[in-house]
Amino acid sequence: MNLLRFSAVCLPLAFAASPCLADEPAAPPPTMASVLAEAAPGEWEAIDPARMIVMQLDAGRVVIELAPQFAPEHVANILTLAREGYFDGLAIVRSQDNYVAQWGDPAADGKDARPLGKARDKLPAEFDRAAEGLSFTALPDPDSYAPEVGIVEGFPAARGGGRAWLAHCYGMVGAGRGSAADSSIGNSLYAVTGHSPRHLDRNITLVGRVIEGMPLLSTLPRGSGALGFYEQAEQRVPIRSVKVAADIEEALRPRFERLRSDSASFGKLIQARRFRHEEWFVDPVGRLELCNLPIPIR
Amino acid sequence: MNLLRFSAVCLPLAFAASPCLADEPAAPPPTMASVLAEAAPGEWEAIDPARMIVMQLDAGRVVIELAPQFAPEHVANILTLAREGYFDGLAIVRSQDNYVAQWGDPAADGKDARPLGKARDKLPAEFDRAAEGLSFTALPDPDSYAPEVGIVEGFPAARGGGRAWLAHCYGMVGAGRGSAADSSIGNSLYAVTGHSPRHLDRNITLVGRVIEGMPLLSTLPRGSGALGFYEQAEQRVPIRSVKVAADIEEALRPRFERLRSDSASFGKLIQARRFRHEEWFVDPVGRLELCNLPIPIR
Repeated sequence: MNLLRFSAVCLPLAFAASPCLADEPAAPPPTMASVLAEAAPGEWEAIDPARMIVMQLDAGRVVIELAPQFAPEHVANILTLAREGYFDGLAIVRSQDNYVAQWGDPAADGKDARPLGKARDKLPAEFDRAAEGLSFTALPDPDSYAPEVGIVEGFPAARGGGRAWLAHCYGMVGAGRGSAADSSIGNSLYAVTGHSPRHLDRNITLVGRVIEGMPLLSTLPRGSGALGFYEQAEQRVPIRSVKVAADIEEALRPRFERLRSDSASFGKLIQARRFRHEEWFVDPVGRLELCNLPIPIR
Repeated sequence: MNLLRFSAVCLPLAFAASPCLADEPAAPPPTMASVLAEAAPGEWEAIDPARMIVMQLDAGRVVIELAPQFAPEHVANILTLAREGYFDGLAIVRSQDNYVAQWGDPAADGKDARPLGKARDKLPAEFDRAAEGLSFTALPDPDSYAPEVGIVEGFPAARGGGRAWLAHCYGMVGAGRGSAADSSIGNSLYAVTGHSPRHLDRNITLVGRVIEGMPLLSTLPRGSGALGFYEQAEQRVPIRSVKVAADIEEALRPRFERLRSDSASFGKLIQARRFRHEEWFVDPVGRLELCNLPIPIR
């Protein structure tokens, strides 16, 4: 486990004129901090503002990167809804401990439901897709739920049997549905705020992940109703607006870059998280589970 | 995957006098709700109040079941500290998103540190123990971190190489330490409030788990300092008291039972969580990761 700790070997050459290799400082083993500090500028890539949405709450903003490569129909509908102002004035309606926070139209099921405008009222389920064509950076350790797990363009994912799907890690955002697989349309969204409920993978359509503002969702008071729904209307958390980042004036538009998951530094990051060389660790672990890999954003 | 949905087969016997088997209601496949409803009274066992502590906050109480079978020295010290009133008036000092909340003496490292009284100021690390002698209910699916995982007397655990250890699932409580493995004494405790940081397993001493009051810890405002420490003293969350449940007058004493992890119903629960037969699930999953298994308490 300590193999990486000393990369230089010093042979006792009594008359060597040049300094012994061991006199050079040994390269410290990589940590997440060192990998990020050393990543080349070209290993970072800007996140397209046309696939980012910004949910403004009274307490601050939540920024979500959408995943059209996995859920194109849902993402298109969410962008339409955001552009129409559908979410503005709606609310976070549910916060269940160790599970999810969910938002949308509290009246969605009744006759006072907010109109969907140009958005579609029916979409196919987008639980998985063909694995082909995705840049999949695989993790080497076993997973409890899938034959293989890894990162696809900044999203935790899994694959098997020629298919690929997003994984319900902390901060992932999905489209709420009823009993029918194809009953989600992206007008009700949830974010994972607890231990990753991976049993939901391929049972519901994931649409993206929160890249800023998770504490605004994770610290919400838990609802006292079934499934963490708020029982009183005044307990709901108002949504001021949900906008597409590209539509926000440039000075206020969020800008993020992510470390490319197909970069050399990302590969080093995976090893640095598998083998923990920070001084605090007694056992460097040597294993890494998908949802414990931080996906760097700056 | 649907094999369990219909347990009765109806052959077309045109002249059968007795009703066809299929006329009887097919036994519905087990769910967590049905397993708990059908568990026999003797499959539940009372949690010993001598190994429960109650942390009273202004907002409510947090009840922790301690695990002396894994961390006897730490548990004994925590009970001593609680009985001396060590924690009374101390504070929650840290809340880091998707990680832990931690409490103890904000002045612990200085000359104004609260005296430990009869508690010990040095303990051995209790990262793992001999696997022998533990009733270990193993889970069948692969784990990213350990050769085998399961439940031991109501605690998520792992084993391998003749050793067993507690696992850092949501709600687990551990004893904060410095860089030295044996620098924890149980006067600073943390609870996991996010995705399970299983890389901490066998790197730090776990001492129990929260069985009531997790939302009081998981919804705390996140600290803005490094590691989620509160930067201002007034941001800290006061602890009114930490008492041993057995020392609380009977009328106010918390009473809990847990479903015995070595019971037949617990075995059924594991299967009901591996194969999700609730109507909502399109794919019954067929897999279960340790920290996604609820450990029933009532």
